[in-house]
Amino acid sequence: MEVVIIGSGNVATHLGLALKNKGITIKQVYSKNPVNAETLATKLDTTSTSDIAKIYNEADIYFYALKDSALRGILKKIKMPSGIQVHTGGTIPMSEFEGFTARFGVFYPLQTFSIDKPVDFSNIPICIEASNFEVQTVLADLADLISTKHYLVDSERRKKLHLAAVFACNFTNYMYDIASEILVDAGVDFEIMYPLIDETTRKIKSITPFYAQTGPAVRMDSKTITRHLNLLNGKNNFKAIYKLLTQEIYKRHSPKSSSTHLSSLRSYLTKK
Amino acid sequence: MEVVIIGSGNVATHLGLALKNKGITIKQVYSKNPVNAETLATKLDTTSTSDIAKIYNEADIYFYALKDSALRGILKKIKMPSGIQVHTGGTIPMSEFEGFTARFGVFYPLQTFSIDKPVDFSNIPICIEASNFEVQTVLADLADLISTKHYLVDSERRKKLHLAAVFACNFTNYMYDIASEILVDAGVDFEIMYPLIDETTRKIKSITPFYAQTGPAVRMDSKTITRHLNLLNGKNNFKAIYKLLTQEIYKRHSPKSSSTHLSSLRSYLTKK
Repeated sequence: MEVVIIGSGNVATHLGLALKNKGITIKQVYSKNPVNAETLATKLDTTSTSDIAKIYNEADIYFYALKDSALRGILKKIKMPSGIQVHTGGTIPMSEFEGFTARFGVFYPLQTFSIDKPVDFSNIPICIEASNFEVQTVLADLADLISTKHYLVDSERRKKLHLAAVFACNFTNYMYDIASEILVDAGVDFEIMYPLIDETTRKIKSITPFYAQTGPAVRMDSKTITRHLNLLNGKNNFKAIYKLLTQEIYKRHSPKSSSTHLSSLRSYLTKK
Repeated sequence: MEVVIIGSGNVATHLGLALKNKGITIKQVYSKNPVNAETLATKLDTTSTSDIAKIYNEADIYFYALKDSALRGILKKIKMPSGIQVHTGGTIPMSEFEGFTARFGVFYPLQTFSIDKPVDFSNIPICIEASNFEVQTVLADLADLISTKHYLVDSERRKKLHLAAVFACNFTNYMYDIASEILVDAGVDFEIMYPLIDETTRKIKSITPFYAQTGPAVRMDSKTITRHLNLLNGKNNFKAIYKLLTQEIYKRHSPKSSSTHLSSLRSYLTKK
């Protein structure tokens, strides 16, 4: 089986490496940036192009690992090959390919990729959608080659999955980033947080995030919240996040609290 | 060594269990709620009281594992025993004990505790502060008995550590909670997120949270952001969080972006 990778970013890189490591031939890498195209081609032992007209025409599958906004532009310009056309995005509907070709689909690895961080594909959930059963079989076989888990997920559900992933991964990572900045200020190494972070992820698996919630917001420990807000003086962006999340956690865990209670909390947070 | 536990919540429970498992005698549990006091006392094979006047007077150490606002009230009422008085809180300054006794300190385990979730104390960082060297030695020995790591941390730095922990643990857990609610709506089991969540925590350890940041906010993928905001119609609290965190991640990773750029992003998010 021959594959062409269109794109040279995080997903293109790690998906390309995973396929290559399982013996799939990466025939070519395309990226509009020739340096990026060649960098990835070198990693994948293959050739590159930055000229859409020179995209190899005989591959079995074309993977589009691109920013949402770039896909349609390329589809309009490419001389459509007869192979299967697949994108790897979370939110782009499969229907983006309609009108361009008949054999198409989605191959969405539910994972966070950074270009220089190696990643083990074997337990990454791969979400598949296909324009017909033949394509679905090809994509499922390919998913099973590089991972132990694939799911059939239509575009609507995949979009929700991707949104959930933004909260569970991107926003979570930003919370770690804020924590690490607060620790720099305290002169403490971020490593001291690792056991806490690990336990937090263990807990959600055994007792669900709702029941795992702890901290001053859920127990409405206003003295502690006040001390934290005072510490955040001068860091208004962190303070705004602290207030909003504290308010929402409190609301989430006090569904029966009177609206009086809630509005007094709100005015309390506003004054700080 | 004899210990009295004052409090019956998450920290009181798990610290009590950890001490008992290492052969320390828990002499008594005090809680103003007699049912809670007795529940914990049963777990710790000891007796309980809900009468401050009946707190055992001869123990070596008294652990106050209480809400910030409750500590002072108890200190005012208790007939102060001669043993070491220690609280387990992140934000309460050690000076709360001043004027009540001479031998006091802080024994703060940097971890998230839920009452029914067993926890391995052995790698929990224990942050210690003491009113004198003799007390510090006792607390350090006790920390080393139940954990492999203790740190000497003064009240100011401990407060910052606790604030960082709120972001890295409590707020992170809430992000998982939101993700799981979005998945319920999509009819997908939260388990599908586990590999992503695990990789997110692995990445911060190898490349730091700043460099680990991925997602539509950091690459300013406005098409994806628009699709996500549309999905969140009707969930205004999640939408407010999505907008604020997206804006802040973008700002954090585009420090040189012109203010024009930023204000256009802000007005874009406001319209949605």
